[in-house]
Amino acid sequence: MNKVNTKTLKGFRELLPAEQMAFNKMLGIIRDTYELYGFIPLDTPVLERAEALLAKAGGETEKQIYQFTKGKTDYAMRFDLTVPLARYVAEHARELSFPFRRYAIGKVYRGERPQAGRLREFYQCDIDIIDKGELSLTADIEIPQIINRIFDDILPNLKFTIKVNNRKILNGFYEELGVDQESTLRIVDKLDKIGVEGISKELSNSGVEDTTINKILDFVNIKGANECVIQQLEQMDIKNEQFVTGIKELAQIANSLSILQIDLSVARGLDYYTGTVYETTLNDYPQIGSICSGGRYDNLIGTYSNTKLPGVGISIGLSRLFDQLKTYDLLKTNSSTPTKVFIIPISSSVECVYEAYRIADTLRDVKIPTEVSTIFKLDKAIKYADKLNINKVIIIGEDELAKSYYTLKNMTTGTQTQIDKENILTEIVNILQLSDK
Amino acid sequence: MNKVNTKTLKGFRELLPAEQMAFNKMLGIIRDTYELYGFIPLDTPVLERAEALLAKAGGETEKQIYQFTKGKTDYAMRFDLTVPLARYVAEHARELSFPFRRYAIGKVYRGERPQAGRLREFYQCDIDIIDKGELSLTADIEIPQIINRIFDDILPNLKFTIKVNNRKILNGFYEELGVDQESTLRIVDKLDKIGVEGISKELSNSGVEDTTINKILDFVNIKGANECVIQQLEQMDIKNEQFVTGIKELAQIANSLSILQIDLSVARGLDYYTGTVYETTLNDYPQIGSICSGGRYDNLIGTYSNTKLPGVGISIGLSRLFDQLKTYDLLKTNSSTPTKVFIIPISSSVECVYEAYRIADTLRDVKIPTEVSTIFKLDKAIKYADKLNINKVIIIGEDELAKSYYTLKNMTTGTQTQIDKENILTEIVNILQLSDK
Repeated sequence: MNKVNTKTLKGFRELLPAEQMAFNKMLGIIRDTYELYGFIPLDTPVLERAEALLAKAGGETEKQIYQFTKGKTDYAMRFDLTVPLARYVAEHARELSFPFRRYAIGKVYRGERPQAGRLREFYQCDIDIIDKGELSLTADIEIPQIINRIFDDILPNLKFTIKVNNRKILNGFYEELGVDQESTLRIVDKLDKIGVEGISKELSNSGVEDTTINKILDFVNIKGANECVIQQLEQMDIKNEQFVTGIKELAQIANSLSILQIDLSVARGLDYYTGTVYETTLNDYPQIGSICSGGRYDNLIGTYSNTKLPGVGISIGLSRLFDQLKTYDLLKTNSSTPTKVFIIPISSSVECVYEAYRIADTLRDVKIPTEVSTIFKLDKAIKYADKLNINKVIIIGEDELAKSYYTLKNMTTGTQTQIDKENILTEIVNILQLSDK
Repeated sequence: MNKVNTKTLKGFRELLPAEQMAFNKMLGIIRDTYELYGFIPLDTPVLERAEALLAKAGGETEKQIYQFTKGKTDYAMRFDLTVPLARYVAEHARELSFPFRRYAIGKVYRGERPQAGRLREFYQCDIDIIDKGELSLTADIEIPQIINRIFDDILPNLKFTIKVNNRKILNGFYEELGVDQESTLRIVDKLDKIGVEGISKELSNSGVEDTTINKILDFVNIKGANECVIQQLEQMDIKNEQFVTGIKELAQIANSLSILQIDLSVARGLDYYTGTVYETTLNDYPQIGSICSGGRYDNLIGTYSNTKLPGVGISIGLSRLFDQLKTYDLLKTNSSTPTKVFIIPISSSVECVYEAYRIADTLRDVKIPTEVSTIFKLDKAIKYADKLNINKVIIIGEDELAKSYYTLKNMTTGTQTQIDKENILTEIVNILQLSDK
């Protein structure tokens, strides 16, 4: 009987221990992998000047922003990690080294209607490489390598594909056709959602002629092995400069990693992408949609500064991915606690408890998470260890203090082993290493 | 020339790379240590129902809360991690195992006047042990051990003291004197800020008699080795039950760790503490105040549920500690990047760049953070590595591809060594291990 409503608000999540542990494991892998590639951590405020965030937001996004006034200040909560990055780089450009490789992992906020799969508070895990003036295309080649390593590690049993395209090809093609690039892009980007018919209708409604619509649909339907797609694009014999550059860039990137697949329908609606665009999908669960997207932009911080800073980046929407893995029963949880060894002093005597602390500290010194029970009744303490899935339990009673060994109970098998007090550390390290295999 | 104000709001911080790396290192040690003691991670929303948070806030805190309405919902931003814990436990009690050991590390928000040392967004790093009905006093004994390990690791060159007291002693003593416990506690708690005279004046103003004030001051001034303080308390011969129990508990805790020092002036103003209270101070920088505080409470979730759940916990205010370390020039920064090895392909040819990727991946496989330059001009790339304090640089040109070795440049000494291509991994691991020493 709760006195106050203790449920979280709609669109906000909190996890139980085993799921939180699984979530944190994924988050940790992402963080560690970003650092393995030399990305620098950045942590900007959740609350920003409303004017600074709104300068970059438009349309739908603006409506979703959590805004409020306190005192004389107009606050807004960040709705992504890219806009704060742009503001940060504009503010600190003189103190940073370029190319600036940064990662950011944090919660962002969007007051969307919380329908299925839409969260109002969710984690984004972003990397971006930004340079002054020019940024090498090798940066675009590096990004999928990082994605590849991350998803190999966090989803070892799921096959995935990184789809790649280049906005220069799309822009050049639409330029050649004489249609409005931005609106056409936005419509074609809905292919997954509304299908070929939906697109035809919307294009027609926006005044595009039928023959042109057919050309667009033919183009979007160019499929096959990367080399074949590139060949077909080249055979279109379009001289438009953007189009030609785009093909060259796309070919170079698509050949760099076997997991990359050219998909000419990928556009990433946001209007700031200007070159490579990426989307990542699970081969057997296309309905989940893209789990990691991004691309190349010519000028990130235009709103905030006059310095030209091109960049390339991607974002993993971890909260949404986690939710989807749960939905499709793809989430594996292991333990409800970090504890690997649980020590039960079965008497609250100073000697017994302090001996438990001594052993625990020896194990912690070699980074084995160890917990000393605050329950001294053996059956109750064992029940607790069992519920939390802790596998190794050491029992220390008054009797044991006088003996030369302790009893180690394996909770999975129920077997008990004697471990020599003098060599307790070595023995436990060995046992844990064996059971990890 | 920025077009929009890109500075963070007053009371909000963002760090430059080297400082962010130092901050994250401290945060990582705290997180890892909490897990080493078997605490389970918990991550609750930053935005909560206003009614749920306000149920626990009072007076000054309530004024500081960031609140707003969007749609039909009244939102509030969390102002600490304890209230969300209470709400979480009330909501999920049936799904949790008790004792519930949880840690939470996250940002909290208080719209305070942003004077020196006061932040509006700051990190708290909390642990709590909560049980149903009763919680063993050994939980109170364990908490300072964790603090001790953490500060040994994050502040290896600074001596610190964990001050400990027990609210039962204070409550029992004030009961015996016949003064109002809560208001007296609040006044005495200001000792560090307003001194003996200030306290005398405030106690007098609140109607306490001079002889009683003198007794209070005598009591607060009981100082010395822990055993002596305990002895003096016992010699006061007060029969009040709370007082007697408090002395017994305090003696047991104070003797458990040499770094613990009884300080009868510690009360931790918040009215929910009911037993042990802790404060941690740096011996040579008392002016910084407590860097880690907490205590025992009888009933955390009273507002939300009728189940009785006693607990004990502490909180490290990491953002404030970090700020203070900077102020007193105690903060050591090392590097501005996680990168340990920087590989420069001095040609953008496919062979050269791909060979750089290959070597980088080999190093990343053994967890060595490695970056491949996106700059191909040697002098510019070296300058970048130098600015970021990266010590080891491998240079790969067209020439090197044909040879059997690569050149490794040590940026600190300027020396260059040849490393055999076949054994590149072993050689670099060795070199890095040597340079770590």
